[in-house]
Amino acid sequence: MKMFRKLLTLDEAKNVIQQHFKPKNLRIEEISILEAYKRILAEDVTAALDIPPFNRSTVDGYAVKAKDTFGADENKPIELKFCGVVNVGEQPKTKVTQGTAVEIVTGAPIPEGADAVVMFEHTERRGSLIYIYNAVTKDENIMKAGADIKKSETVLKAGVQLGSREIGVLAALGMKKVNVYAMPKVAVLSTGAELTEPGAKLSQGKIYDINAYSLSVAVQECGGKPIYFGVLPDELNKIRTALRKAITVADMVITSGGVSVGPKDVMPRVLNSLGSLGVILCGVAIKPGKPTTVAVIDEKLVFSLPGHPTSALLVFHLLVRPLIQNMVGIAKSENLRVKALAGMRLFPAKGRRTFIMVKLNREKSGRLIAEPVLTGLSGAITTLAKADGFVEISENQQFIDANEEVTVNLFKSLD
Amino acid sequence: MKMFRKLLTLDEAKNVIQQHFKPKNLRIEEISILEAYKRILAEDVTAALDIPPFNRSTVDGYAVKAKDTFGADENKPIELKFCGVVNVGEQPKTKVTQGTAVEIVTGAPIPEGADAVVMFEHTERRGSLIYIYNAVTKDENIMKAGADIKKSETVLKAGVQLGSREIGVLAALGMKKVNVYAMPKVAVLSTGAELTEPGAKLSQGKIYDINAYSLSVAVQECGGKPIYFGVLPDELNKIRTALRKAITVADMVITSGGVSVGPKDVMPRVLNSLGSLGVILCGVAIKPGKPTTVAVIDEKLVFSLPGHPTSALLVFHLLVRPLIQNMVGIAKSENLRVKALAGMRLFPAKGRRTFIMVKLNREKSGRLIAEPVLTGLSGAITTLAKADGFVEISENQQFIDANEEVTVNLFKSLD
Repeated sequence: MKMFRKLLTLDEAKNVIQQHFKPKNLRIEEISILEAYKRILAEDVTAALDIPPFNRSTVDGYAVKAKDTFGADENKPIELKFCGVVNVGEQPKTKVTQGTAVEIVTGAPIPEGADAVVMFEHTERRGSLIYIYNAVTKDENIMKAGADIKKSETVLKAGVQLGSREIGVLAALGMKKVNVYAMPKVAVLSTGAELTEPGAKLSQGKIYDINAYSLSVAVQECGGKPIYFGVLPDELNKIRTALRKAITVADMVITSGGVSVGPKDVMPRVLNSLGSLGVILCGVAIKPGKPTTVAVIDEKLVFSLPGHPTSALLVFHLLVRPLIQNMVGIAKSENLRVKALAGMRLFPAKGRRTFIMVKLNREKSGRLIAEPVLTGLSGAITTLAKADGFVEISENQQFIDANEEVTVNLFKSLD
Repeated sequence: MKMFRKLLTLDEAKNVIQQHFKPKNLRIEEISILEAYKRILAEDVTAALDIPPFNRSTVDGYAVKAKDTFGADENKPIELKFCGVVNVGEQPKTKVTQGTAVEIVTGAPIPEGADAVVMFEHTERRGSLIYIYNAVTKDENIMKAGADIKKSETVLKAGVQLGSREIGVLAALGMKKVNVYAMPKVAVLSTGAELTEPGAKLSQGKIYDINAYSLSVAVQECGGKPIYFGVLPDELNKIRTALRKAITVADMVITSGGVSVGPKDVMPRVLNSLGSLGVILCGVAIKPGKPTTVAVIDEKLVFSLPGHPTSALLVFHLLVRPLIQNMVGIAKSENLRVKALAGMRLFPAKGRRTFIMVKLNREKSGRLIAEPVLTGLSGAITTLAKADGFVEISENQQFIDANEEVTVNLFKSLD
């Protein structure tokens, strides 16, 4: 029996999924800032202290009372009495009183009583006397406590991705740990009687599974934590059991490929049997990717992607990636894109949003060319190895001409 | 005592370091392909098998002898005898002999004797008879073994960074493990009597250490494995011991900040005391970053970077990052760059290659503006938090004018 149903457009499919996707309460975890690279800050960070925490000297020289230096110049130095030294990292042991000066180095705290620092270059020491050849004004060569960051100031905003600079800022504030969003766990499973786990011996009629690996890494690429379930045995009960387990342990589930046992549309039936809501969309008017099926079970999204590796990765990029990034805590999820020129005339499939896999070639002239890579059954691996990204052609467009400018959505970032 | 020496230019400094940097024999390790995300392939990967490994059907239909279908059309179907079914993943149990047909699904192996597949749409089954309404030619609807990848073909080249697509290709070839370059271990240490470890209580005159954290994460950003040594105690013997240990356990060592004990140029002396070659360069004509010192000890590079966090990160980007990426196995190391317009007139320091930290602001008009961020002692943390990258001004340039186009070297990638 053939079932005829109107396929959803890509935008309709996105809307249906969005209606059922509620990552409102992202889990938060506290981790060491040394482990926080690439993670997303889960709360605004406000300074718990002034930075610098004390008035510090910005030069090497002598801490003085500014008014003691009044009138000093090269021809008429003013004489002050040496009364000690302050080094960095130490509490000053002496005060500066009228007529005295304390030797100080860059970064050391200004001793009590001093309100300016004269640079070494403008002084001369003879025994216990310091000659000041240059007058200073109040606060000269002093960085005041809080001049860089004021206590209670918001320094980093929730949603920021943490790199070397942001983690340096957290360290400066004395934070050894930080609250970040927990990485969403995404279970990845492959189905198909023909599939064998890599590493195992390949028997006649079998091929190695690709998707459980490529999709697990794709989950990592967008900041999620894959839970590798591998190839499911081709028995309905075992598939049901594995899916139930996946839904329990993970925040999202991705399967790919067909199920050989039973009728052709067995996957939607299995998904419907696992709980409500069951299947929310079954088939999307895109090429490739038409058989894409999405279910909600126990409030978790389950994606059933096509078996062809490049198609699975494409649908992952179109529908799954933005949601995982959302769960990771990335507010604005965008594919990386580059402009290029179509290497040949590109045609859409009739009535379906069409995605053409392309390889980017930089010509000697500097022009970036998007060369289509063959897909379909005839090039599963070569496509994967060669496609840098994909070009989208709308349902209504007749074709994209050779040398026309196109936007290439990249499969991976260019870093 | 003041030492006068001619500072090396940035290019001279790079040359001196390059002469002593020999990452010829990168360590190789075998890891699971599930752990291989972002790692660099250490050897060419050649296919150990044909892909597909067998002739497979590209459609659902009947496997036949092509010559049996000769002359078939809609008005004059040819009659064949049904003699079994082949599913995906199974070894065909029946042969196709003259006048017979075997039901076959997409991806299933072509049974012996068959040399073409007729699509279901062009057939009709009545009991044990199959009516063929369309002639097929030899090899029609068959994907031959090796049509995608031939056994012994080189599929991925050494030096490739592994992502979802490349790891999918490895899986397709049945590889559960892969040889990648080991991550270089980089020890990161901070020196300075004023420094306190984040998380500890801050006593008077102290500040929290930033660099051991920001530089550890910077090491991660370029694919290395930081070994966090934290803040060294301000005692010459302990600094010497820690450095010796760092050189033993790591492939490269990065320190930052000054040493308060002893005379001002104590770090070069400590480094020289640790073994040959000792210090290979001491001071670079750049601003900021002038006090940068580099040593070679036991054939390992030891970088002594400035204490100011943004200066340390800048010198890391200029001198250290390309070398770590080289050790990671990345052949061509390039900073990510964007073009922007200078937000104001920018001046170089006299006689020194000058680097101005900038924040990128996208104006409503779409123009990308590089706004200078104040550096120096007066903005250690705000600079870190705000600087997206830096603009380089050559020693010989008078200034960069406001609104002039500049290249901004980014501190982090834009992904």
